[in-house]
Amino acid sequence: MSRRDKGAILVLSGPSGAGKSTIISAASGQIGMYYFSISTTTREPRVGEVDGKDYFFVSKESFEEDIKAGNFLEYAEVHGNYYGTSLTPVNSALEEGKLVIFDIDVQGHRLVRAKMNDITTSAFITPPTLRELESRLRTRCTDTEEVILNRLKNAKEEIEALNEYDFTIINDSLEEAAEEFVIVAKAARLKYSQETEEKFIAQWLA
Amino acid sequence: MSRRDKGAILVLSGPSGAGKSTIISAASGQIGMYYFSISTTTREPRVGEVDGKDYFFVSKESFEEDIKAGNFLEYAEVHGNYYGTSLTPVNSALEEGKLVIFDIDVQGHRLVRAKMNDITTSAFITPPTLRELESRLRTRCTDTEEVILNRLKNAKEEIEALNEYDFTIINDSLEEAAEEFVIVAKAARLKYSQETEEKFIAQWLA
Repeated sequence: MSRRDKGAILVLSGPSGAGKSTIISAASGQIGMYYFSISTTTREPRVGEVDGKDYFFVSKESFEEDIKAGNFLEYAEVHGNYYGTSLTPVNSALEEGKLVIFDIDVQGHRLVRAKMNDITTSAFITPPTLRELESRLRTRCTDTEEVILNRLKNAKEEIEALNEYDFTIINDSLEEAAEEFVIVAKAARLKYSQETEEKFIAQWLA
Repeated sequence: MSRRDKGAILVLSGPSGAGKSTIISAASGQIGMYYFSISTTTREPRVGEVDGKDYFFVSKESFEEDIKAGNFLEYAEVHGNYYGTSLTPVNSALEEGKLVIFDIDVQGHRLVRAKMNDITTSAFITPPTLRELESRLRTRCTDTEEVILNRLKNAKEEIEALNEYDFTIINDSLEEAAEEFVIVAKAARLKYSQETEEKFIAQWLA
């Protein structure tokens, strides 16, 4: 802890279309060494998706073996496909002192909190209104009507969990949202694991 | 919450001699509008202490009336004297959208958490070691031997509560500590009250 033995975790949640990726890109030069966690999934890659960049694409058998072996920090089954966060790259990044950034949903946040609360900071990133979210989803033209309606439905449910997050970032201006994200990412590094704190206290008293 | 209806609270704890006041002074130009909470006490003013700056000095009767009226956010009796945080100036500052900064002990932090958890962020500020703390207390030559030993005894107890705080700031370099304090103070403003969040969600869905 002089100043830091290990990394820390920053969980970002918020509706698809909130601008999380854009904010991270805009801020990436100002938040130090970080690892953006890539999810593992059993669903088929979509056109343009790259293994190891968008997702780690694996077979259902492989995923289920890793579940049994306790290799997932969190996972969920959605429409018959598994999605999860493999512990191996997360632990490597933490050992290297990096800030591990997760883009996961409300349920995933709860599971990370349950397992690694001591080093976790979280922020909910949201467009200013549901209407604005709908307008952004329609403008980007990447989703079918069915997908858009599903995203809006999920967003309505997820916004209710706002109070479970340490901080809220309202993305009405990319510049301000990126500034706020930098603050939260820097603050996240001032959170130390229980192990690190215990070591620090022992050395402190010596 | 566009972007902020009310203020927020930042609790700072840590041993006397950790450099809290120096850090706040060094950072004060970079953290926006804030109100540094002044405690109320029934003890006699010491030489050089100013009413309304160092403390609000009041009578024991007045203090006990305010306790009964529920006018304290937190209070404690120490060696026959009361020390507490009056709610009135805190609420005014919050209404004005200010960041309210408290320099209170571990017990005070617990009481603030119990009452205003939703808008509270906290940081424990500490010198790098107990020895360094002792050396600083002796160098500043403001305390008697008895007071120094008492401060060290308290510090040994308080450091054990490190894990109750959101963030840890190790003051081994004033410049770095002030930078870290600015980050924490800015992050604290991204925490919204339950009331503000509920209002935001209602408007968000509308």
